[in-house]
Amino acid sequence: MKLGDGVEAAIHCVTALATLDEGRVLPAAAMAEFHGLSTSYLLKHLKALTKAGILASVPGPTGGYKLAKAPEDLTLLDVVLAVEGPEPAFRCKEIRRKGPNPLPDDAFPKPCGINAAMLKAEQAYRKALRETLISDLIHNHNQTSDPRVHARGCAFVQQHIRP
Amino acid sequence: MKLGDGVEAAIHCVTALATLDEGRVLPAAAMAEFHGLSTSYLLKHLKALTKAGILASVPGPTGGYKLAKAPEDLTLLDVVLAVEGPEPAFRCKEIRRKGPNPLPDDAFPKPCGINAAMLKAEQAYRKALRETLISDLIHNHNQTSDPRVHARGCAFVQQHIRP
Ligand code: FES
Ligand code: FES
Repeated sequence: MKLGDGVEAAIHCVTALATLDEGRVLPAAAMAEFHGLSTSYLLKHLKALTKAGILASVPGPTGGYKLAKAPEDLTLLDVVLAVEGPEPAFRCKEIRRKGPNPLPDDAFPKPCGINAAMLKAEQAYRKALRETLISDLIHNHNQTSDPRVHARGCAFVQQHIRP
Repeated sequence: MKLGDGVEAAIHCVTALATLDEGRVLPAAAMAEFHGLSTSYLLKHLKALTKAGILASVPGPTGGYKLAKAPEDLTLLDVVLAVEGPEPAFRCKEIRRKGPNPLPDDAFPKPCGINAAMLKAEQAYRKALRETLISDLIHNHNQTSDPRVHARGCAFVQQHIRP
């Protein structure tokens, strides 16, 4: 099981944008530079976050990205699903219906129990992600990070913030 | 997030092998046929299950696979990790340390809070998988499946069981 690399970048960008004052934006290129990523790679994920209503993009030469919702109204699950898509990790291909001597569809009135058990575990995963707010991550970061990490982040934001 | 297709095949084979009497085996080719899969594809996953101590393989012309443990001693998590490997779904690449003006390692005494939150959710997923025994899946299947499904499965096993 593997999540795409984009998830790490997406969550870090969302938490960085959560520190901006109302109406301010950061350009994609600045966020890419700060995280050591290529802009084209990051743009793909920023667009997915925008499409999901998590970010808003402001076009034009002084444009960039900002949060479309308050960090209290965004969960880790929102960000993960925006980047990875809504499909569950386990994708049943109904192999119980394959092979010789196939049975008619009415022999399978219920979902396969294996599929049901896998989806139940996925619900537990999603519940844990849903219970973590982006505001919790920021609060935790502010409480526990080294002052040098804060200083570096603030200096970078001040240098690139728009307008 | 996506699990490999092999997980579905692996769990179905493990539950099928759990129905065999002591000392009996099923060949890989029969299990592949029953699930509409290619033998080479299935063998890859059967070997991973064997390496993980979930299956035992009996070599030779009357050989095949059997469970290496009782179904009560096997969990869904055992099977998923055997096929998918032990790595968590979220793989932090420490992007917080990338980019301009890098900080020394001692500015990061703790794991990134984002990584910690993602791993916590994965623990919830693994816990749910660990709580589902292979014997539970079989019990549930026996209670709820259509008699035609049982009859087809039994007939196939009787035709291919060894020795
Ligand atoms: S048929 Fe897909 S998990 Fe059983
Ligand atoms: S540095 Fe990897 S999740 Fe934060």
